[in-house]
Amino acid sequence: MSKEMRQFILSRTPEGNLSAGDFELQTVARPVPADGEVLVKARLISLDPANRGWMSGKTYRDQVMPGDVMAGAVLGDVVESNHPAFDVGDRVFGDLGWREFAVSDTRELEKMPKTEPDSLVMSAVTSRTAYFGLLDIGKPQPGETLVVSGAAGATGSVAAQIGKLKGCRVIGLAGTDAKCDWLTGEAGLDAAINYRKGSLSKQLREACPKGIDIYFDNTAGDILNACLRQMRMHGRIVCCGAISSYDSGEIPPGPVGVPGILIVMRLEMKGFIVFDFAKRFPEADAELAAWAADGKLIIPEDILPGFESLPEGLVGLLAGENLGKRMVRVTS
Amino acid sequence: MSKEMRQFILSRTPEGNLSAGDFELQTVARPVPADGEVLVKARLISLDPANRGWMSGKTYRDQVMPGDVMAGAVLGDVVESNHPAFDVGDRVFGDLGWREFAVSDTRELEKMPKTEPDSLVMSAVTSRTAYFGLLDIGKPQPGETLVVSGAAGATGSVAAQIGKLKGCRVIGLAGTDAKCDWLTGEAGLDAAINYRKGSLSKQLREACPKGIDIYFDNTAGDILNACLRQMRMHGRIVCCGAISSYDSGEIPPGPVGVPGILIVMRLEMKGFIVFDFAKRFPEADAELAAWAADGKLIIPEDILPGFESLPEGLVGLLAGENLGKRMVRVTS
Repeated sequence: MSKEMRQFILSRTPEGNLSAGDFELQTVARPVPADGEVLVKARLISLDPANRGWMSGKTYRDQVMPGDVMAGAVLGDVVESNHPAFDVGDRVFGDLGWREFAVSDTRELEKMPKTEPDSLVMSAVTSRTAYFGLLDIGKPQPGETLVVSGAAGATGSVAAQIGKLKGCRVIGLAGTDAKCDWLTGEAGLDAAINYRKGSLSKQLREACPKGIDIYFDNTAGDILNACLRQMRMHGRIVCCGAISSYDSGEIPPGPVGVPGILIVMRLEMKGFIVFDFAKRFPEADAELAAWAADGKLIIPEDILPGFESLPEGLVGLLAGENLGKRMVRVTS
Repeated sequence: MSKEMRQFILSRTPEGNLSAGDFELQTVARPVPADGEVLVKARLISLDPANRGWMSGKTYRDQVMPGDVMAGAVLGDVVESNHPAFDVGDRVFGDLGWREFAVSDTRELEKMPKTEPDSLVMSAVTSRTAYFGLLDIGKPQPGETLVVSGAAGATGSVAAQIGKLKGCRVIGLAGTDAKCDWLTGEAGLDAAINYRKGSLSKQLREACPKGIDIYFDNTAGDILNACLRQMRMHGRIVCCGAISSYDSGEIPPGPVGVPGILIVMRLEMKGFIVFDFAKRFPEADAELAAWAADGKLIIPEDILPGFESLPEGLVGLLAGENLGKRMVRVTS
């Protein structure tokens, strides 16, 4: 058994659009767990729009600097344990980065069920973001109009469907006709808008004749600007992500009309990070799993094969080529 | 007894800074109340930064158009009544506009106590905005740091003092040293910053070493931008006003970093209009009056004499010359 492994380091801080050349594949010695540590073998590595933001500065985590192993959430198995609370074979989740094996002191590891397919366990983690963002920040009421941007993405697709489960009229925004077809077809939304085609404002007016009660924002930028203008009185804007700006590395202009429009229309804009809801993850996991088991919630997945596909996989994610939760299969 | 009266109409929609020449003083026939209506004689007319915003477009009320009597909140007395629920001598409050006498169908009139000084009754109406904005949107907790912009204004001065009453460390922002002296002197704030002197960001860092938990925003613009960057995790931004932009007539750029900074720092920005709390006005009035009676809350007033001083009074208010609640004495 080889004692080597592969990892990707960020070789330079990208300026403008990320490219696969911003990463370097290395073969290095597999790390050895010290006392109190475990060695985890990666099964799946998650690709998320926020990965790009981590390269541009400190966010809710430290910046990923050139020379660092690229950060990323990993679902894996404990293959060596020097920690009393973890056994070989335990399935775990944590930000272990883009490497085939990782050592952890377990403080930031979460034990996960060994249910199959394992990809659903990974997707479920992203679904929590949709769950708490929509339910706790958006507070959907039956009959309200919910607009979700990035609606064919991992978070957006789940947020939109939860909105339907809560009795909202739901409109999804996405960047291709195929995604829109999926949203109004399989995902069962009331309408979908390809924001790259025609006037978004005009299409929003047609799809939301009463205006927007809740806007679940994954994109920020021009889409946020357009939705802001069509919010109804006492509406809520769930600030979940800002995909439109992650890949530029520049700070975009702020949303025009804020805060005046917030005052006149009595709107709330609220940001959140899913980790703040950690104590309630079991509640979310149980309800999401029940909805999925009943066929009420479809969790779309986009699994790329092979560790080496990570850089191109992230570049493509930022360009919007995924439908649903993108992840890379390292081993099974 | 003359059957004429004076009124000001807005003679043109101002572009850029408002000037007194944008109004025209007219002498017209005093209106006669029809069945179900009352005639109100103005005692005090309120001047508020929002008055300027009303000229630029539809807000929470219709735009004031050229040729319209200028809108404004009035405290007055019923001098003729054709309405069963109103008696001659009743003191009333409502948006009756810049005229010495006004007819009303009473639907938007609020009966007010005939306590003296009457100016305190007028100020109390503005204090409600501070009360609900700070307590319901800001949710101050003891030990938290509260920053208030426009802190020497009618709303800001009260919001800041309520923050002190709730156990917050309170920093007021104002545009003159005299106002800052008043804030740290009579009003009892922990610190005050003249935002026109030196770097606001640097002064904020010094005055708020732990960061800002609540920012009560009366100004928007550059001050909002600076405060946003120093918010603490889970902070709240109370969007109460946008004085910095009212007098330009242009829509200013949005706050830089929104929504990204809202996400990373888990911030809430929420706008409100005090009318939404109408059912709870008695609660606010009672608590504010009790604080004032106990000397715990100082309500600064800035009363200009004479109906004809309305235009210059509003122009000066927008330039920040008032300390506390500005109003014009029509009759006493």
